[in-house]
Amino acid sequence: MSYYSPSIEKLIESFEKLPSIGHKTATRLAFHMLDLSELETNEFINSIINAKKSLKYCSICYNISDTDPCPICASPKRDLTTICVVEDVKDIIAMERTHEFKGVYHVLHGSISPMNGIGPDDIKIKELLSRIGNNKISEIIIATNPRVEGEATAMYLSKLIKPMGIKVTRIAHGIPVGGDLEYTDEITLMKALEGRREI
Amino acid sequence: MSYYSPSIEKLIESFEKLPSIGHKTATRLAFHMLDLSELETNEFINSIINAKKSLKYCSICYNISDTDPCPICASPKRDLTTICVVEDVKDIIAMERTHEFKGVYHVLHGSISPMNGIGPDDIKIKELLSRIGNNKISEIIIATNPRVEGEATAMYLSKLIKPMGIKVTRIAHGIPVGGDLEYTDEITLMKALEGRREI
Repeated sequence: MSYYSPSIEKLIESFEKLPSIGHKTATRLAFHMLDLSELETNEFINSIINAKKSLKYCSICYNISDTDPCPICASPKRDLTTICVVEDVKDIIAMERTHEFKGVYHVLHGSISPMNGIGPDDIKIKELLSRIGNNKISEIIIATNPRVEGEATAMYLSKLIKPMGIKVTRIAHGIPVGGDLEYTDEITLMKALEGRREI
Repeated sequence: MSYYSPSIEKLIESFEKLPSIGHKTATRLAFHMLDLSELETNEFINSIINAKKSLKYCSICYNISDTDPCPICASPKRDLTTICVVEDVKDIIAMERTHEFKGVYHVLHGSISPMNGIGPDDIKIKELLSRIGNNKISEIIIATNPRVEGEATAMYLSKLIKPMGIKVTRIAHGIPVGGDLEYTDEITLMKALEGRREI
């Protein structure tokens, strides 16, 4: 049985559809919305509309951006010969936060996952290959997620790109900094052992 | 330093302003919004606009509702002589979930809190008094929150209403069902002792 008015119910449902928002948080958010002034509500709504309207994919790397090409592809400071391949736009941000990588990116917008019916043609692999074909590339760093799908995608890409005479590398797997051996799962530990380096 | 495009930044900020949403969740929600189809986005936005437009306060109890009077005040099954006084619209829902209370409500929309500059005139006390004056009321149940402000409001209301010859009661404080004596704070335990009943 519902205790709320239909319009509140509808609003709560809308919030509940968002990821990581349960019924209680959705209710809190809905009531917060009702408490907002007209101006604040419009600001909220406009930020959604504007983002949806003005954002587009960078035609080079498929990052989401207000401009095309995106600021990273357009920057003269970036090394265009090194491409870091990631699954998602958010992964670019994670990489950028390291302040270490000076190359450019390529966003696949997914990973190969036969279980979910996602094949190589469903993600931006064709675009990556034509990008490699048309430009002088020295290294492709594959930074897909260390999960089954990410690994499969990495293997697939490596098999396609290596014959083109380009160095293909994969980011290291291992124990996170600050992590604990005791609580590390065996696969990560195995990868950490495999990837050991002389010191 | 910001790594996102201005429109995404703005959208993330919008979500961050909502209660209980931190930066990480706001980012996830913002990217979710970008992934939504035009139709889904419009549905989300319309649910906000509709709720803001169609919801009004019930002129009797100040509940939020699509209709005036609200379904509870308009229901012929409710006992109009018993009024449960709550601080917030959400408290009505909490009470309704018990399926126990058959009376009607009065929402104060706050509690007396001199620290925050909220006096008796800032909440719906005047409205409650005139409602009591104009109707045959047998009992006022004060269900404000068991905090300093809620208690102060309860005391204040009781002093005003008792002289009108109306029974004023306060919901019981005590150990929650399923709670643990060991982990109960001393004030709750004191209240539980004070409120003990013969069995």
